Amino acid sequence: MSLIVQKYGGTSVANPDRIRNVAARVAKYHAQGDRVVVVVSAMSGVTDNLIRMAKEIMALPSDREMDVLLATGEQTTIALTAIALHSLKIPAVSLTGAQAGIVTDGVHTKARIQNITPKKIHELLNQGNVVIVAGFQGQTQEGQVTTLGRGGSDLTAIALAAAIKADLCQIYTDVDGVYTADPRIVPDAKKLDVISYDEMLELASLGAKVMQSRSVEFAKKFGVVFEVRSSLNEHPGTIVKEETKNMEDVVVRGVSLDKNQAKVTLVAVPDKPGIAARVFKGLADANVNVDMIVQNISHGAGAPATDLSFTVDKPDLLKAQKVIDGLKTEIGFGKVIATDNIGKLSLVGVGMKSHTGVAAKMFETLAREGVNIDMISTSEIKVSVIIDLSKGEHAMKAVHAAFLG
Amino acid sequence: MSLIVQKYGGTSVANPDRIRNVAARVAKYHAQGDRVVVVVSAMSGVTDNLIRMAKEIMALPSDREMDVLLATGEQTTIALTAIALHSLKIPAVSLTGAQAGIVTDGVHTKARIQNITPKKIHELLNQGNVVIVAGFQGQTQEGQVTTLGRGGSDLTAIALAAAIKADLCQIYTDVDGVYTADPRIVPDAKKLDVISYDEMLELASLGAKVMQSRSVEFAKKFGVVFEVRSSLNEHPGTIVKEETKNMEDVVVRGVSLDKNQAKVTLVAVPDKPGIAARVFKGLADANVNVDMIVQNISHGAGAPATDLSFTVDKPDLLKAQKVIDGLKTEIGFGKVIATDNIGKLSLVGVGMKSHTGVAAKMFETLAREGVNIDMISTSEIKVSVIIDLSKGEHAMKAVHAAFLG
Repeated sequence: MSLIVQKYGGTSVANPDRIRNVAARVAKYHAQGDRVVVVVSAMSGVTDNLIRMAKEIMALPSDREMDVLLATGEQTTIALTAIALHSLKIPAVSLTGAQAGIVTDGVHTKARIQNITPKKIHELLNQGNVVIVAGFQGQTQEGQVTTLGRGGSDLTAIALAAAIKADLCQIYTDVDGVYTADPRIVPDAKKLDVISYDEMLELASLGAKVMQSRSVEFAKKFGVVFEVRSSLNEHPGTIVKEETKNMEDVVVRGVSLDKNQAKVTLVAVPDKPGIAARVFKGLADANVNVDMIVQNISHGAGAPATDLSFTVDKPDLLKAQKVIDGLKTEIGFGKVIATDNIGKLSLVGVGMKSHTGVAAKMFETLAREGVNIDMISTSEIKVSVIIDLSKGEHAMKAVHAAFLG
Repeated sequence: MSLIVQKYGGTSVANPDRIRNVAARVAKYHAQGDRVVVVVSAMSGVTDNLIRMAKEIMALPSDREMDVLLATGEQTTIALTAIALHSLKIPAVSLTGAQAGIVTDGVHTKARIQNITPKKIHELLNQGNVVIVAGFQGQTQEGQVTTLGRGGSDLTAIALAAAIKADLCQIYTDVDGVYTADPRIVPDAKKLDVISYDEMLELASLGAKVMQSRSVEFAKKFGVVFEVRSSLNEHPGTIVKEETKNMEDVVVRGVSLDKNQAKVTLVAVPDKPGIAARVFKGLADANVNVDMIVQNISHGAGAPATDLSFTVDKPDLLKAQKVIDGLKTEIGFGKVIATDNIGKLSLVGVGMKSHTGVAAKMFETLAREGVNIDMISTSEIKVSVIIDLSKGEHAMKAVHAAFLG
């Protein structure tokens, strides 16, 4: 007799057959007396098709109209899901984001949820309905259609779970949960039973794309415990929650490899105040997201100079180079070395806070495997290194074996 | 400098290319200073595809959820149309039925418009925008998504034209206007410059499917003058308006042939009060729409008996026969003759009110061509005859030549 929010992504509702499967799963919970709110994404392929048509008409369509356009994807799924539940003789009512009371700001295509008034949801639940809510979308105070951007359906589910004080929030996906490493690369990766928000956030930002950081941050902020699990089987998934003392007994929770990074090094940058600020202000102005930054100590005999390296998302590399080229005369550095032939290997675990030697053991492992380390960056619960892309998967396996094997 | 409502149907917005054509046409009006409200249907094929998916899940999906589902079709088109106008540097904003202030009753899949609050539309027009409104849909007072049923987008256009007091309402379609007869059957049929609401209604109900009766009735009720014209060329179309005195100078406005009728005759029905009522009550209860009814005078030597004939839509014939069979013992008629091998040929014109001899001339023409008349029905502005289906097109040509050649 729990109040449950379940979220099903695009592949789980890809066609009428899969939607029937979702309905069958929801039906089980309904049969055991649970009250269920179902959040669904657009059927996979639908959103891409809508974007393709819009871009066929205009290369840069307006954000407002893209929201009106894309919101139809989830609206289609809610109706079909409600119908699928009806076919199982389960009372169900669909709600668009607006109808569900999800109010956002007016930043089209990446709106933020401002508040949720779940009156209608409670009403419908109290009448015995399963309530199907369109993920990814909301409405401004003024009645404009908005969408929440990438990963928006997860966000809808977690925000709704917070708003209705759900006992359980289940994020259904096509994997069994969160793994100690990507099982496609590391065959003996293990599914985690539990992981903390912070670990999940590090993994998300490190390229283990189970969920967008934004949704995890929201869950952390509002203390929403959620479970990532598969819509294809009945296995329990991974519980994501606030870290507890005994989570620290596990030093390393997982290993991730991000292949989507590129590195830029400015060689022989004059070592004087304001230079780094100038570089990263320029990149920020060009909307280039910078991840790791490493600056070494000064070297050289004459005027003090240093090497400044940073990483960006691979698609932003050209844009970043253009920014840097534009600063060459102003700053007067030696040369620029850019490469997208790198991988970022990371170890994550809240246990690192209380255990020493993790970085050292990681570096030893890499040395033993003949993997050269290019850049290092650490946080309280993470060690990341930039290495040669070609050695990425091998290094990942070795580090996984050393810590989690 | 007119305020214009333009409606584009599914074939006019069938793909991104056609939507660009629509935008180009709207742009011309915008360029000459007109304020334009554009009403669009779903891209052709989209609605059918949504229905197919729903029926794949459940044979009889709920009306409420069908409305949520089908409303996405028009919502997709409004966004793409707005984007197409943007690509021509014309300010344009899309509105769903709900956002446009279209409030309906709660009869899902065939809701009736209760009122329109065009505040948002006026606001956007005053800011210089072209306003794109989703046809076919509205919202109840309580915020439920509704659709208006077949021909709903025409209705949206005409209702909006009434609500905003538009100077002009243009219904764009794939024909040049209303013809004196179907040009595919009668090659020398002529496009009409003008036609009265009543004539248009008769033609609509008689199988000349340019527009649904409902929209024409609405236009008549609110005095909305509209033009039916082609979205494929620049030819002026047919103006539909209240009849004027000089319209009566034209005796016959058009000829139509409805091939979608079937006929049922009850032979030797006891001629006593209440029998006809019983028959047609039974048919109404079974949702069978009866069109023509003819009852001849009593005949026979013994108890007075009569023959009762009526026509129904072809797809309803089996249902009608079942109803009649169920009444056989109760009423005690002789036998039932049913055939769907008929056509209904009609002459329509407000001029008939003041001109005599129309029916006689029609019957003479048919006689000369050797076409036997099965049933006759007349109204103030119409003469209809049921004839053999195989002679339908030949008869139509002959009658057209006699009156309109």
